[in-house]
Amino acid sequence: MPVGEFDLIDRYFRRLDRPGGHARADVLLGVGDDAAVLRVPAGQELVAAIDTLVEGRHFLPGCAPQSIGHRALAVNLSDLAAMGAEPAWALLALTLPAAEEAFLEAFAAGLGRLAAAHHVALVGGDTTAGPLTVSVQVLGFVPPGQALRRAGGAPGDLLFVSGTPGDAAAGLQLERRAADGGVAPPGEAAAGQALRERFLYPTPRVALGRALRGLASACIDVSDGLAGDAAKLAAASGCGLRLEADALPLSPALRALAGPERALQLALEGGDDYELCFSLPPAQLPELAVAAQAGGCPLTCIGVLEQAPGVRLYRGGKIQPYVATGYDHFANSG
Amino acid sequence: MPVGEFDLIDRYFRRLDRPGGHARADVLLGVGDDAAVLRVPAGQELVAAIDTLVEGRHFLPGCAPQSIGHRALAVNLSDLAAMGAEPAWALLALTLPAAEEAFLEAFAAGLGRLAAAHHVALVGGDTTAGPLTVSVQVLGFVPPGQALRRAGGAPGDLLFVSGTPGDAAAGLQLERRAADGGVAPPGEAAAGQALRERFLYPTPRVALGRALRGLASACIDVSDGLAGDAAKLAAASGCGLRLEADALPLSPALRALAGPERALQLALEGGDDYELCFSLPPAQLPELAVAAQAGGCPLTCIGVLEQAPGVRLYRGGKIQPYVATGYDHFANSG
Repeated sequence: MPVGEFDLIDRYFRRLDRPGGHARADVLLGVGDDAAVLRVPAGQELVAAIDTLVEGRHFLPGCAPQSIGHRALAVNLSDLAAMGAEPAWALLALTLPAAEEAFLEAFAAGLGRLAAAHHVALVGGDTTAGPLTVSVQVLGFVPPGQALRRAGGAPGDLLFVSGTPGDAAAGLQLERRAADGGVAPPGEAAAGQALRERFLYPTPRVALGRALRGLASACIDVSDGLAGDAAKLAAASGCGLRLEADALPLSPALRALAGPERALQLALEGGDDYELCFSLPPAQLPELAVAAQAGGCPLTCIGVLEQAPGVRLYRGGKIQPYVATGYDHFANSG
Repeated sequence: MPVGEFDLIDRYFRRLDRPGGHARADVLLGVGDDAAVLRVPAGQELVAAIDTLVEGRHFLPGCAPQSIGHRALAVNLSDLAAMGAEPAWALLALTLPAAEEAFLEAFAAGLGRLAAAHHVALVGGDTTAGPLTVSVQVLGFVPPGQALRRAGGAPGDLLFVSGTPGDAAAGLQLERRAADGGVAPPGEAAAGQALRERFLYPTPRVALGRALRGLASACIDVSDGLAGDAAKLAAASGCGLRLEADALPLSPALRALAGPERALQLALEGGDDYELCFSLPPAQLPELAVAAQAGGCPLTCIGVLEQAPGVRLYRGGKIQPYVATGYDHFANSG
């Protein structure tokens, strides 16, 4: 890729220095030097996450570049949301086979729209030639000692999830079918579109994460499947977990297209939701309503932390045989 | 890649949370949660850089994993050095085709040794399956207003470079010849090895960068070729540049193996040096000796910033016809 093409690329991303057209006063030096210089607000702790999307693994070949740009930032904002942090700045490492203007414009638009929504400034980047791979690193703040961790839950704490898990995994399956030339059955259009949108344009729960500071005892973002991620939270907290299958919030679209059994499986094991799963001491329940309003998304109690380690799935009041299989299994079965 | 293999990978990198076995007190939460939580020293500005190495572009297929790990961190430390910043924390996004223990152990050893030397803690990471690609993001600090920028030079400022540029580019050519099954001519061994080491294990000039705070008027790290990077510094400073070809510090190894003309070309246009190039008001010359000692590497005056834009190469007191071709051209000519 000649140097001139990289100048072109720089032009696309330099715009994102000013999210939504508004500069951040805490960006002392943005894109264009050897590194960015930033001002962390006095007394705040810094929160940092990095995540990579690889073509063929995290998105399908031929995926809309808007979606790739959106998701590359969204998965990182979701990590910050899970910490209760307020995102501020992002750095982008983009490896791509060729500098196609149409791709770059759409990718930057997808990333830029989400960045503007959260007032996140792109302050640095590196573009190289190679197989399509996108790493984004996001930085944000949290008041001292208030970061939400995976550890911190205790037996008796209630377990909640935001939104409707499983939708994104179902959406990915529909995307795969479309990519393979499959045709949607009649009547599927609206529900199918809703699920695909959940995969292509997930909503990082940043406002919810902030609202859960000082309230949730532990928090994790659901990226690899609800059951597995909830199990990670429980294990980090030194607990086990009782999950109520009947309580899982299944979206009407997911029920309609997948049927009840498959919907349940997708909600438990499907990846790419980017919802928050958190534990809450029961005494905090009254305050949760306020947080739910601030978070702008439905919250559902799906279980409780217990002393005995491991995950127990209950259905109709009875324990079910259940072996959590996790993300990788699902990815191969889709 | 099954989940279990990623657990294995995590083990290799979790060790790097404690550089050289010593934990950093400013890492409040390291690898293992959704994000890291870090404490920036009061009153310091935050400096952030991200850089990617792609197999086949930044290193040869079959390259020693120690070198890949070293360079992935070194290129980022070099960016922080160019800002005069003190590095503190790194995040790693590693995409690799398979979780081979031998590769991971050597990669982590190469990265870890350099991290320990600079007391940098690895505080986060993301490992995914895919074509071998390494993105590292480094964070550090600088006292308020003291970051070195590319802009800031003025006509009359002297231009310096650290170390002996061109060595790494010559080393890469020797690596390529070896990879192609070529045999080194007799007598080349020691000099050739020295040059190859400069490519495989570059030395980020972190101490020099810090010593140049308040002294250099502008600074850039030399990654894409000295002439091109010096031109970027000059342009960012609103200046042009007179480069003295006869003053370029060519290493004995480079002279011996490349001959004087090719050595000059490599010093001007070869990439991967990771030296610092900086401008200095002549009045600061006496203080530069102190900085040079702190920096621990030779510094050479190679030119002067001028009012007229553009790069002018002088040799034997006469201007030479010279068109800077930059990194990409060199990469194809090697």
